[in-house]
Amino acid sequence: MRFVRFRDPNGDVRGGEWTGEDGAEIRAYPVDGRRYTVASERYAVADVDVLPPTVPSKIVCVGLNYADHAAEQDEELPDRPLLFLKPPNALASHGATVELPAGKERLDYEAELGVVVGERCRDVDAAEAASVVAGYTCVNDLSNRDDQRIETNWVRGKAFDGAAPVGPVVASPDEVPADAAVRCRVNGDLRQDSSRSEFIFSVPELLAEITSYMTLEPGDVVSTGTPAGVGPLSDGDSVAVTVEGVGTLRHDVTIP
Amino acid sequence: MRFVRFRDPNGDVRGGEWTGEDGAEIRAYPVDGRRYTVASERYAVADVDVLPPTVPSKIVCVGLNYADHAAEQDEELPDRPLLFLKPPNALASHGATVELPAGKERLDYEAELGVVVGERCRDVDAAEAASVVAGYTCVNDLSNRDDQRIETNWVRGKAFDGAAPVGPVVASPDEVPADAAVRCRVNGDLRQDSSRSEFIFSVPELLAEITSYMTLEPGDVVSTGTPAGVGPLSDGDSVAVTVEGVGTLRHDVTIP
Repeated sequence: MRFVRFRDPNGDVRGGEWTGEDGAEIRAYPVDGRRYTVASERYAVADVDVLPPTVPSKIVCVGLNYADHAAEQDEELPDRPLLFLKPPNALASHGATVELPAGKERLDYEAELGVVVGERCRDVDAAEAASVVAGYTCVNDLSNRDDQRIETNWVRGKAFDGAAPVGPVVASPDEVPADAAVRCRVNGDLRQDSSRSEFIFSVPELLAEITSYMTLEPGDVVSTGTPAGVGPLSDGDSVAVTVEGVGTLRHDVTIP
Repeated sequence: MRFVRFRDPNGDVRGGEWTGEDGAEIRAYPVDGRRYTVASERYAVADVDVLPPTVPSKIVCVGLNYADHAAEQDEELPDRPLLFLKPPNALASHGATVELPAGKERLDYEAELGVVVGERCRDVDAAEAASVVAGYTCVNDLSNRDDQRIETNWVRGKAFDGAAPVGPVVASPDEVPADAAVRCRVNGDLRQDSSRSEFIFSVPELLAEITSYMTLEPGDVVSTGTPAGVGPLSDGDSVAVTVEGVGTLRHDVTIP
């Protein structure tokens, strides 16, 4: 099942199921929040505003979780996950045009698999971590390298408004294979092409490490790092982040 | 005016005014949210659970904003604010006993003045920044130095559960002098004693810089850095952070 949040033509924020790939229908849950019935409404995706499929209190991001990306960034492999944070202001939707920070020389895409948390949890054991996972989504960890390279914590570099396009859906775990492909295309050209099987730290290992310090809330996202192939964006570029089993998160960027 | 949030003896979350210093009364707003009238209820602070006086979507923290603290940390003065983030899981209340991370050698207090944002804002001009400030509060920027010193971003070091006791009130700007004292006492001993007049970056400068990258939401907190005198905490210590005009945030710590 692929869960989607959207604003319907009446302006109501709704939930529903994304019943196919791009261009397909949304089978909407009733406004009162019960699950759809035979009589449920259907919308073409193009006719609604797709919203981030989750409302996280925080996005906990992982750096350098693919060996090939660590090599291209000239970084040693970490002995534990490199963590950083994106607050809710960073969220952006499928279909958005994200305005990136002005006056920077290097603004990068980073395609990532996002883990969506299903229940409040702390001190999760890796062996039981699957039970706290609601599903998976696509994340673009947009990065302002000019500031990232010179600041102690990556706030200007990674937490600016719109720095985390997320979506279009939360796919239940059964939809996403263990070796799910993670890809990025810019203006249709394939730039990143790897898979979850290349992770340095697995999803259960990440959840165990993060929750040994902090509580994760329902809806929080753990973004699992990006593979090799990271590169710059230009004004007007269209980005497509695909996670096999989830689908494709599409957005444009403008650079003022 | 000093605004307080609390859970009353019936378990309802309420707002009200803190009508004096420690041990004084709370004049409660009615449960329906209207401001108190002559007939408003009064509670002794000791009879209620004081909650964080604001519900931030994020806490944006500033490092090295007092020249004396930068010197004691052996850091150069920054040419722009050093920023880092604490997500909502870090919040703790006045009166809480915060359980600090286990197995660490150095866990520090850092008394800070917190700015509470009153309206959604982006690209705030320093000259007009006062208009977005709802008031001020006390923050203890609890710090796990073991991890902070070795991680790229201060997540384990600064964003662990309970790492941001905030409160007990939001004091309106008219209550807090421009040279407000910022003090920390541990078990009654004065450890930090400085004032807002020692800031490297003023509150308007901080708000202008932060909002040039990110939107601040109503209730968000900007914690303005800590003065000299930072030091370690031990299991069972009682911490009191005082900001002149706000009052005193008190909490205990345990170290498992």
